[in-house]
Amino acid sequence: MLTLYAHPFSTPALAALFTGHATGAKFETKIIDLTKHGHREPEFLAINPHGKVPALKDGDFTMSESTAIMRYLARTTQSSLLPMDPKGAAVVDQWMDFIAHHIRTPFSHVQFGRMFAPLFKQEPNEAAIQNGVDQLQNNLPYIEARLGAHEYICGNALTLADILFTATLDPTKAINLDLSLYPAVTAMLNKTRKSDWYLAVHTHYAAEMGLNA
Amino acid sequence: MLTLYAHPFSTPALAALFTGHATGAKFETKIIDLTKHGHREPEFLAINPHGKVPALKDGDFTMSESTAIMRYLARTTQSSLLPMDPKGAAVVDQWMDFIAHHIRTPFSHVQFGRMFAPLFKQEPNEAAIQNGVDQLQNNLPYIEARLGAHEYICGNALTLADILFTATLDPTKAINLDLSLYPAVTAMLNKTRKSDWYLAVHTHYAAEMGLNA
Repeated sequence: MLTLYAHPFSTPALAALFTGHATGAKFETKIIDLTKHGHREPEFLAINPHGKVPALKDGDFTMSESTAIMRYLARTTQSSLLPMDPKGAAVVDQWMDFIAHHIRTPFSHVQFGRMFAPLFKQEPNEAAIQNGVDQLQNNLPYIEARLGAHEYICGNALTLADILFTATLDPTKAINLDLSLYPAVTAMLNKTRKSDWYLAVHTHYAAEMGLNA
Repeated sequence: MLTLYAHPFSTPALAALFTGHATGAKFETKIIDLTKHGHREPEFLAINPHGKVPALKDGDFTMSESTAIMRYLARTTQSSLLPMDPKGAAVVDQWMDFIAHHIRTPFSHVQFGRMFAPLFKQEPNEAAIQNGVDQLQNNLPYIEARLGAHEYICGNALTLADILFTATLDPTKAINLDLSLYPAVTAMLNKTRKSDWYLAVHTHYAAEMGLNA
Protein backbone atom coordinates (compact mmCIF):
# COMPACT_ATOMS: atom_id res chain seq x y z
CA MET A 1 0.00 0.00 0.00
CA LEU A 2 1.38 3.37 -1.06
CA THR A 3 0.91 6.60 0.89
CA LEU A 4 0.47 9.87 -0.98
CA TYR A 5 1.06 13.02 1.07
CA ALA A 6 -1.03 15.90 -0.26
CA HIS A 7 -3.06 19.01 0.41
CA PRO A 8 -5.91 20.40 -1.70
CA PHE A 9 -4.28 23.85 -2.06
CA SER A 10 -1.37 22.28 -3.96
CA THR A 11 -2.08 21.70 -7.65
CA PRO A 12 1.03 19.47 -7.93
CA ALA A 13 -0.45 17.32 -5.12
CA LEU A 14 -3.77 17.22 -7.01
CA ALA A 15 -1.92 15.96 -10.09
CA ALA A 16 -0.39 13.10 -8.08
CA LEU A 17 -3.76 12.20 -6.49
CA PHE A 18 -5.60 12.25 -9.84
CA THR A 19 -2.89 9.98 -11.25
CA GLY A 20 -3.21 7.63 -8.29
CA HIS A 21 -6.90 7.15 -9.05
CA ALA A 22 -6.53 7.15 -12.85
CA THR A 23 -3.86 4.41 -12.75
CA GLY A 24 -5.73 2.26 -10.25
CA ALA A 25 -2.74 2.30 -7.88
CA LYS A 26 -3.47 1.09 -4.35
CA PHE A 27 -2.77 4.03 -2.09
CA GLU A 28 -3.94 5.95 0.94
CA THR A 29 -3.95 9.73 1.12
CA LYS A 30 -2.40 11.57 4.04
CA ILE A 31 -3.31 15.24 4.24
CA ILE A 32 -0.40 17.48 5.26
CA ASP A 33 -2.05 20.67 6.47
CA LEU A 34 -0.06 23.43 4.78
CA THR A 35 -2.12 26.11 6.56
CA LYS A 36 -0.78 24.77 9.89
CA HIS A 37 2.82 24.29 8.63
CA GLY A 38 2.42 20.51 8.55
CA HIS A 39 5.02 20.45 5.79
CA ARG A 40 7.64 21.78 8.22
CA GLU A 41 7.00 19.06 10.86
CA PRO A 42 9.85 16.56 11.43
CA GLU A 43 7.52 13.65 10.65
CA PHE A 44 6.91 14.96 7.14
CA LEU A 45 10.48 16.21 6.59
CA ALA A 46 11.57 12.59 7.14
CA ILE A 47 9.49 11.73 4.03
CA ASN A 48 10.49 14.78 1.97
CA PRO A 49 13.38 16.87 3.34
CA HIS A 50 12.43 19.63 0.88
CA GLY A 51 9.15 20.05 2.80
CA LYS A 52 6.77 20.06 -0.16
CA VAL A 53 3.72 18.08 -1.16
CA PRO A 54 3.14 15.81 -2.95
CA ALA A 55 5.42 13.10 -1.61
CA LEU A 56 5.08 9.35 -1.94
CA LYS A 57 6.01 6.45 0.33
CA ASP A 58 6.19 2.93 -1.07
CA GLY A 59 7.49 0.67 1.71
CA ASP A 60 10.89 2.11 2.63
CA PHE A 61 11.15 3.99 -0.68
CA THR A 62 10.20 7.68 -0.53
CA MET A 63 10.12 10.24 -3.30
CA SER A 64 8.90 13.73 -4.15
CA GLU A 65 8.29 16.08 -7.15
CA SER A 66 4.83 15.73 -8.66
CA THR A 67 5.66 14.78 -12.22
CA ALA A 68 8.20 12.19 -11.03
CA ILE A 69 5.50 10.70 -8.77
CA MET A 70 3.03 10.67 -11.69
CA ARG A 71 5.54 8.74 -13.81
CA TYR A 72 6.26 6.28 -10.97
CA LEU A 73 2.56 5.60 -10.46
CA ALA A 74 2.07 5.05 -14.21
CA ARG A 75 5.11 2.77 -14.59
CA THR A 76 4.41 0.60 -11.55
CA THR A 77 0.82 0.03 -12.73
CA GLN A 78 1.91 -0.35 -16.41
CA SER A 79 -0.62 2.34 -17.27
CA SER A 80 -1.19 3.47 -20.86
CA LEU A 81 -1.24 7.05 -19.47
CA LEU A 82 2.55 6.99 -20.08
CA PRO A 83 3.38 5.13 -23.30
CA MET A 84 6.41 2.81 -23.32
CA ASP A 85 7.65 3.42 -26.89
CA PRO A 86 10.26 6.21 -27.10
CA LYS A 87 8.27 8.51 -29.43
CA GLY A 88 4.99 8.06 -27.55
CA ALA A 89 6.80 8.71 -24.25
CA ALA A 90 8.56 11.73 -25.77
CA VAL A 91 5.30 13.43 -26.72
CA VAL A 92 3.93 12.97 -23.20
CA ASP A 93 7.24 14.07 -21.64
CA GLN A 94 7.32 17.17 -23.83
CA TRP A 95 3.81 18.29 -22.93
CA MET A 96 4.24 17.49 -19.23
CA ASP A 97 7.35 19.68 -19.22
CA PHE A 98 5.59 22.39 -21.21
CA ILE A 99 2.71 22.43 -18.72
CA ALA A 100 4.94 22.28 -15.64
CA HIS A 101 7.22 25.12 -16.80
CA HIS A 102 5.11 27.34 -19.04
CA ILE A 103 1.62 26.95 -17.57
CA ARG A 104 2.01 25.90 -13.94
CA THR A 105 4.72 28.41 -13.02
CA PRO A 106 2.80 31.52 -14.19
CA PHE A 107 -0.48 30.05 -12.91
CA SER A 108 1.10 29.64 -9.47
CA HIS A 109 2.03 33.33 -9.40
CA VAL A 110 -1.59 34.30 -10.09
CA GLN A 111 -2.83 31.73 -7.57
CA PHE A 112 -0.43 32.99 -4.93
CA GLY A 113 -1.47 36.60 -5.37
CA ARG A 114 -5.22 36.09 -5.66
CA MET A 115 -5.79 33.11 -3.34
CA PHE A 116 -2.97 32.59 -0.84
CA ALA A 117 -1.90 36.20 -0.20
CA PRO A 118 -5.39 37.18 1.02
CA LEU A 119 -5.62 33.94 3.02
CA PHE A 120 -2.31 34.63 4.76
CA LYS A 121 -3.15 38.35 5.07
CA GLN A 122 -0.29 39.41 2.78
CA GLU A 123 -0.38 42.24 0.28
CA PRO A 124 -0.76 40.72 -3.22
CA ASN A 125 2.11 41.43 -5.62
CA GLU A 126 0.11 42.93 -8.50
CA ALA A 127 3.11 43.02 -10.87
CA ALA A 128 3.73 39.29 -10.32
CA ILE A 129 0.03 38.55 -10.87
CA GLN A 130 -0.03 40.53 -14.12
CA ASN A 131 3.18 38.87 -15.30
CA GLY A 132 1.60 35.47 -14.59
CA VAL A 133 -1.57 36.40 -16.50
CA ASP A 134 0.51 37.65 -19.44
CA GLN A 135 2.60 34.47 -19.56
CA LEU A 136 -0.55 32.34 -19.45
CA GLN A 137 -1.96 34.33 -22.38
CA ASN A 138 1.29 33.65 -24.25
CA ASN A 139 1.41 29.93 -23.49
CA LEU A 140 -2.21 28.69 -23.30
CA PRO A 141 -2.66 29.10 -27.09
CA TYR A 142 -0.23 26.20 -27.63
CA ILE A 143 -2.47 23.90 -25.57
CA GLU A 144 -5.56 25.34 -27.28
CA ALA A 145 -4.02 24.48 -30.68
CA ARG A 146 -3.30 20.90 -29.57
CA LEU A 147 -6.84 20.45 -28.25
CA GLY A 148 -8.32 22.00 -31.37
CA ALA A 149 -6.59 19.29 -33.43
CA HIS A 150 -6.87 16.26 -31.08
CA GLU A 151 -9.22 14.99 -28.40
CA TYR A 152 -6.43 15.12 -25.81
CA ILE A 153 -3.18 17.07 -25.54
CA CYS A 154 -0.97 14.26 -26.88
CA GLY A 155 -3.44 12.79 -29.39
CA ASN A 156 -6.52 10.63 -29.17
CA ALA A 157 -5.90 9.06 -25.75
CA LEU A 158 -5.81 10.48 -22.23
CA THR A 159 -2.26 10.73 -20.87
CA LEU A 160 -0.43 12.11 -17.84
CA ALA A 161 -0.22 15.43 -19.70
CA ASP A 162 -4.01 15.89 -19.59
CA ILE A 163 -4.09 14.97 -15.91
CA LEU A 164 -1.31 17.45 -15.12
CA PHE A 165 -3.08 20.15 -17.11
CA THR A 166 -6.43 19.48 -15.40
CA ALA A 167 -4.78 19.63 -11.98
CA THR A 168 -2.84 22.77 -12.81
CA LEU A 169 -5.92 24.67 -13.95
CA ASP A 170 -8.19 23.31 -11.22
CA PRO A 171 -8.43 26.56 -9.19
CA THR A 172 -9.29 28.60 -12.31
CA LYS A 173 -12.60 29.79 -10.85
CA ALA A 174 -11.16 30.37 -7.39
CA ILE A 175 -8.56 32.75 -8.85
CA ASN A 176 -10.95 34.32 -11.34
CA LEU A 177 -8.98 33.44 -14.46
CA ASP A 178 -10.85 34.00 -17.71
CA LEU A 179 -10.55 31.02 -20.09
CA SER A 180 -13.18 32.25 -22.57
CA LEU A 181 -10.48 32.78 -25.24
CA TYR A 182 -9.77 29.04 -25.11
CA PRO A 183 -12.88 27.05 -26.07
CA ALA A 184 -11.03 23.78 -26.72
CA VAL A 185 -9.30 24.02 -23.32
CA THR A 186 -12.64 24.75 -21.66
CA ALA A 187 -14.33 21.80 -23.41
CA MET A 188 -11.53 19.44 -22.39
CA LEU A 189 -11.66 20.58 -18.74
CA ASN A 190 -15.45 20.17 -18.75
CA LYS A 191 -14.84 16.55 -19.78
CA THR A 192 -11.93 15.67 -17.47
CA ARG A 193 -13.71 17.27 -14.51
CA LYS A 194 -16.40 14.59 -14.90
CA SER A 195 -13.85 11.75 -14.82
CA ASP A 196 -13.91 9.15 -12.05
CA TRP A 197 -10.33 10.09 -11.05
CA TYR A 198 -11.30 13.76 -10.73
CA LEU A 199 -14.48 13.16 -8.77
CA ALA A 200 -12.82 10.58 -6.50
CA VAL A 201 -10.24 13.13 -5.37
CA HIS A 202 -12.60 16.03 -4.89
CA THR A 203 -15.16 13.94 -3.02
CA HIS A 204 -12.37 12.61 -0.81
CA TYR A 205 -11.01 16.07 -0.14
CA ALA A 206 -14.45 17.39 0.63
CA ALA A 207 -14.86 14.71 3.27
CA GLU A 208 -11.32 15.09 4.66
CA MET A 209 -11.58 18.84 4.85
CA GLY A 210 -15.15 18.99 6.11
CA LEU A 211 -16.23 20.85 2.96
CA ASN A 212 -19.39 20.43 0.95
CA ALA A 213 -18.98 18.15 -2.07
CA MET B 1 20.88 11.27 -38.12
CA LEU B 2 19.25 13.51 -35.51
CA THR B 3 19.45 17.31 -35.57
CA LEU B 4 19.69 19.21 -32.27
CA TYR B 5 18.82 22.90 -32.45
CA ALA B 6 20.71 24.85 -29.80
CA HIS B 7 22.49 28.02 -28.76
CA PRO B 8 25.27 28.35 -26.17
CA PHE B 9 23.40 31.00 -24.15
CA SER B 10 20.65 28.47 -23.36
CA THR B 11 21.49 26.15 -20.47
CA PRO B 12 18.55 23.86 -21.44
CA ALA B 13 20.13 23.55 -24.90
CA LEU B 14 23.49 22.76 -23.27
CA ALA B 15 21.80 19.97 -21.29
CA ALA B 16 20.45 18.42 -24.50
CA LEU B 17 23.83 18.71 -26.26
CA PHE B 18 25.74 17.20 -23.32
CA THR B 19 23.24 14.32 -23.31
CA GLY B 20 23.65 13.83 -27.04
CA HIS B 21 27.39 13.31 -26.56
CA ALA B 22 27.10 11.35 -23.30
CA THR B 23 24.64 8.84 -24.82
CA GLY B 24 26.62 8.41 -28.03
CA ALA B 25 23.58 9.44 -30.11
CA LYS B 26 24.33 10.24 -33.75
CA PHE B 27 23.37 13.87 -34.23
CA GLU B 28 24.35 17.12 -35.84
CA THR B 29 24.06 20.47 -34.07
CA LYS B 30 22.34 23.41 -35.68
CA ILE B 31 22.95 26.75 -33.97
CA ILE B 32 19.87 28.96 -33.76
CA ASP B 33 21.26 32.45 -33.14
CA LEU B 34 19.10 33.80 -30.31
CA THR B 35 20.92 37.15 -30.45
CA LYS B 36 19.61 37.63 -34.03
CA HIS B 37 16.09 36.30 -33.26
CA GLY B 38 16.76 33.04 -35.12
CA HIS B 39 14.22 31.38 -32.79
CA ARG B 40 11.47 33.56 -34.29
CA GLU B 41 12.27 32.62 -37.93
CA PRO B 42 9.58 30.55 -39.75
CA GLU B 43 12.14 27.83 -40.51
CA PHE B 44 12.73 27.21 -36.80
CA LEU B 45 9.09 27.74 -35.78
CA ALA B 46 8.24 24.82 -38.11
CA ILE B 47 10.44 22.66 -35.83
CA ASN B 48 9.28 24.17 -32.52
CA PRO B 49 6.21 26.44 -32.69
CA HIS B 50 7.03 27.63 -29.15
CA GLY B 51 10.23 29.19 -30.52
CA LYS B 52 12.64 27.90 -27.91
CA VAL B 53 15.84 25.89 -28.01
CA PRO B 54 16.63 23.10 -27.61
CA ALA B 55 14.53 21.27 -30.17
CA LEU B 56 15.15 17.91 -31.79
CA LYS B 57 14.40 16.51 -35.26
CA ASP B 58 14.50 12.77 -35.84
CA GLY B 59 13.31 12.14 -39.41
CA ASP B 60 9.80 13.59 -39.55
CA PHE B 61 9.47 13.50 -35.75
CA THR B 62 10.14 16.82 -33.99
CA MET B 63 10.09 17.62 -30.29
CA SER B 64 11.05 20.27 -27.76
CA GLU B 65 11.55 20.79 -24.00
CA SER B 66 15.05 20.01 -22.78
CA THR B 67 14.37 17.31 -20.20
CA ALA B 68 12.01 15.50 -22.60
CA ILE B 69 14.77 15.57 -25.25
CA MET B 70 17.30 14.26 -22.70
CA ARG B 71 14.97 11.34 -21.90
CA TYR B 72 14.38 10.62 -25.60
CA LEU B 73 18.12 10.55 -26.32
CA ALA B 74 18.71 8.22 -23.35
CA ARG B 75 15.85 5.84 -24.26
CA THR B 76 16.66 5.58 -27.96
CA THR B 77 20.28 4.75 -27.16
CA GLN B 78 19.32 2.49 -24.21
CA SER B 79 21.68 4.53 -22.06
CA SER B 80 22.23 3.74 -18.38
CA LEU B 81 21.98 7.51 -17.75
CA LEU B 82 18.22 6.86 -17.32
CA PRO B 83 17.59 3.57 -15.51
CA MET B 84 14.75 1.34 -16.74
CA ASP B 85 13.54 -0.04 -13.39
CA PRO B 86 10.75 2.06 -11.83
CA LYS B 87 12.58 3.00 -8.62
CA GLY B 88 15.85 3.80 -10.41
CA ALA B 89 13.95 5.90 -12.94
CA ALA B 90 11.99 7.59 -10.14
CA VAL B 91 15.15 8.80 -8.39
CA VAL B 92 16.47 10.30 -11.64
CA ASP B 93 13.05 11.80 -12.48
CA GLN B 94 12.78 13.35 -9.03
CA TRP B 95 16.19 15.02 -9.16
CA MET B 96 15.75 16.18 -12.76
CA ASP B 97 12.47 17.83 -11.72
CA PHE B 98 14.08 19.29 -8.60
CA ILE B 99 16.90 20.79 -10.66
CA ALA B 100 14.61 22.07 -13.43
CA HIS B 101 12.16 23.74 -11.04
CA HIS B 102 14.14 24.66 -7.95
CA ILE B 103 17.63 25.33 -9.32
CA ARG B 104 17.23 26.25 -13.01
CA THR B 105 14.33 28.67 -12.57
CA PRO B 106 16.03 30.89 -9.94
CA PHE B 107 19.39 30.52 -11.73
CA SER B 108 17.76 31.80 -14.94
CA HIS B 109 16.56 34.93 -13.12
CA VAL B 110 20.11 35.67 -11.96
CA GLN B 111 21.48 34.85 -15.42
CA PHE B 112 18.95 37.10 -17.10
CA GLY B 113 19.71 40.04 -14.85
CA ARG B 114 23.50 39.73 -14.78
CA MET B 115 24.26 38.43 -18.30
CA PHE B 116 21.40 39.03 -20.76
CA ALA B 117 20.05 42.37 -19.50
CA PRO B 118 23.44 44.12 -19.98
CA LEU B 119 23.86 42.36 -23.36
CA PHE B 120 20.45 43.59 -24.55
CA LYS B 121 20.98 47.00 -22.92
CA GLN B 122 18.12 46.51 -20.47
CA GLU B 123 18.05 47.67 -16.87
CA PRO B 124 18.63 44.60 -14.63
CA ASN B 125 15.77 43.77 -12.26
CA GLU B 126 17.71 43.76 -8.98
CA ALA B 127 14.77 42.39 -6.96
CA ALA B 128 14.43 39.42 -9.34
CA ILE B 129 18.19 38.79 -9.17
CA GLN B 130 18.17 38.86 -5.36
CA ASN B 131 15.11 36.58 -5.25
CA GLY B 132 16.93 34.15 -7.55
CA VAL B 133 20.06 34.20 -5.38
CA ASP B 134 17.94 33.64 -2.25
CA GLN B 135 16.12 30.69 -3.81
CA LEU B 136 19.41 29.16 -4.93
CA GLN B 137 20.73 29.48 -1.37
CA ASN B 138 17.57 27.70 -0.17
CA ASN B 139 17.74 24.89 -2.72
CA LEU B 140 21.42 24.21 -3.44
CA PRO B 141 21.92 22.66 0.04
CA TYR B 142 19.71 19.71 -1.02
CA ILE B 143 22.08 18.96 -3.92
CA GLU B 144 25.09 19.54 -1.66
CA ALA B 145 23.68 16.98 0.81
CA ARG B 146 23.22 14.41 -1.99
CA LEU B 147 26.75 14.96 -3.27
CA GLY B 148 28.18 14.82 0.24
CA ALA B 149 26.71 11.32 0.60
CA HIS B 150 27.16 9.93 -2.96
CA GLU B 151 29.55 10.37 -5.87
CA TYR B 152 26.70 11.59 -8.09
CA ILE B 153 23.31 13.15 -7.40
CA CYS B 154 21.33 9.90 -7.71
CA GLY B 155 23.95 7.56 -6.24
CA ASN B 156 27.19 6.05 -7.48
CA ALA B 157 26.62 6.39 -11.23
CA LEU B 158 26.35 9.39 -13.53
CA THR B 159 22.75 10.03 -14.66
CA LEU B 160 20.77 12.62 -16.60
CA ALA B 161 20.34 14.52 -13.32
CA ASP B 162 24.08 15.24 -13.10
CA ILE B 163 24.17 16.33 -16.74
CA LEU B 164 21.20 18.65 -16.22
CA PHE B 165 22.81 20.09 -13.09
CA THR B 166 26.16 20.63 -14.84
CA ALA B 167 24.43 22.39 -17.75
CA THR B 168 22.26 24.50 -15.46
CA LEU B 169 25.23 25.77 -13.46
CA ASP B 170 27.54 26.16 -16.46
CA PRO B 171 27.48 30.00 -16.54
CA THR B 172 28.26 30.22 -12.79
CA LYS B 173 31.44 32.24 -13.37
CA ALA B 174 29.87 34.37 -16.09
CA ILE B 175 27.13 35.49 -13.67
CA ASN B 176 29.47 35.77 -10.68
CA LEU B 177 27.61 33.26 -8.49
CA ASP B 178 29.53 32.23 -5.38
CA LEU B 179 29.49 28.44 -4.85
CA SER B 180 32.08 28.44 -2.04
CA LEU B 181 29.42 27.33 0.46
CA TYR B 182 28.97 24.13 -1.56
CA PRO B 183 32.25 22.17 -1.67
CA ALA B 184 30.65 18.89 -2.82
CA VAL B 185 28.83 20.70 -5.66
CA THR B 186 32.08 22.42 -6.65
CA ALA B 187 34.02 19.13 -6.59
CA MET B 188 31.38 17.43 -8.75
CA LEU B 189 31.35 20.27 -11.30
CA ASN B 190 35.17 20.19 -11.42
CA LYS B 191 34.85 16.52 -12.38
CA THR B 192 31.95 16.72 -14.88
CA ARG B 193 33.55 19.74 -16.57
CA LYS B 194 36.45 17.44 -17.56
CA SER B 195 34.11 14.85 -19.12
CA ASP B 196 34.31 14.03 -22.82
CA TRP B 197 30.64 15.08 -23.29
CA TYR B 198 31.31 18.45 -21.69
CA LEU B 199 34.51 19.18 -23.62
CA ALA B 200 32.99 18.00 -26.91
CA VAL B 201 30.19 20.56 -26.63
CA HIS B 202 32.33 23.46 -25.54
CA THR B 203 34.99 22.79 -28.17
CA HIS B 204 32.26 22.53 -30.80
CA TYR B 205 30.65 25.77 -29.67
CA ALA B 206 33.99 27.52 -29.62
CA ALA B 207 34.50 26.59 -33.28
CA GLU B 208 30.90 27.37 -34.29
CA MET B 209 30.89 30.71 -32.56
CA GLY B 210 34.42 31.72 -33.55
CA LEU B 211 35.49 31.80 -29.90
CA ASN B 212 38.73 30.63 -28.38
CA ALA B 213 38.58 27.11 -26.93
